[in-house]
Amino acid sequence: MFSPTALAAAFDRVQDYWSPKVIGQVNDQLLKAAKLKGELVWHAHDGQDELFYIVKGSLRIDFEDGAVDLKEGDFLTVPSGVRHNPVAADECWVLLIEPASTLHTGDEVTSRTRSLAEQMS
Amino acid sequence: MFSPTALAAAFDRVQDYWSPKVIGQVNDQLLKAAKLKGELVWHAHDGQDELFYIVKGSLRIDFEDGAVDLKEGDFLTVPSGVRHNPVAADECWVLLIEPASTLHTGDEVTSRTRSLAEQMS
Repeated sequence: MFSPTALAAAFDRVQDYWSPKVIGQVNDQLLKAAKLKGELVWHAHDGQDELFYIVKGSLRIDFEDGAVDLKEGDFLTVPSGVRHNPVAADECWVLLIEPASTLHTGDEVTSRTRSLAEQMS
Repeated sequence: MFSPTALAAAFDRVQDYWSPKVIGQVNDQLLKAAKLKGELVWHAHDGQDELFYIVKGSLRIDFEDGAVDLKEGDFLTVPSGVRHNPVAADECWVLLIEPASTLHTGDEVTSRTRSLAEQMS
């Protein structure tokens, strides 16, 4: 039988900042819970959009031509190939929707890059 | 420049029950806002999962082997090909995530079936 997932409660699995956990799937897209604080790194995902939905707190996403502020309950799709850098002044809980193959640091591999296996754990 | 969408405010566009409106997209999946009340119809979507996220209220989804109750903040992916029937005792606001090609009544075409053009309007 099917069991629903409580979105906010799913964030209990997330222990570390910038370390998304897979909490659901629809077709070829994964739903990931992430807790963010500070800034990530400038990057892009070629061929893959990435949706940010703010579950708690707020998030600024810097783009090369300006910044967008997301409040709790807002979502924004960062289109494929667009360079961006998420910046959270305070702890922010984000639901990400992106293809199974997306690395959250995109074309940049850093100490914060997490493999899909790590995201499933 | 990019503009965020406030999820709850996006439901202002939805005037009628069982008449989803497209409010966003990520890769090949559409995000749709729908207000539900009463029951839809038994149907399945072959080859297409459909995700339900409860923005306001609660929803029961009947399956052939039982029912699942979704509360506000819960989500559930109905897998491809699984027959289901959403039933809302009271008004319920649902975010749907499904492929651009999905009809919300699946393999059943009823008076409640809405074309993609109608969902974009």
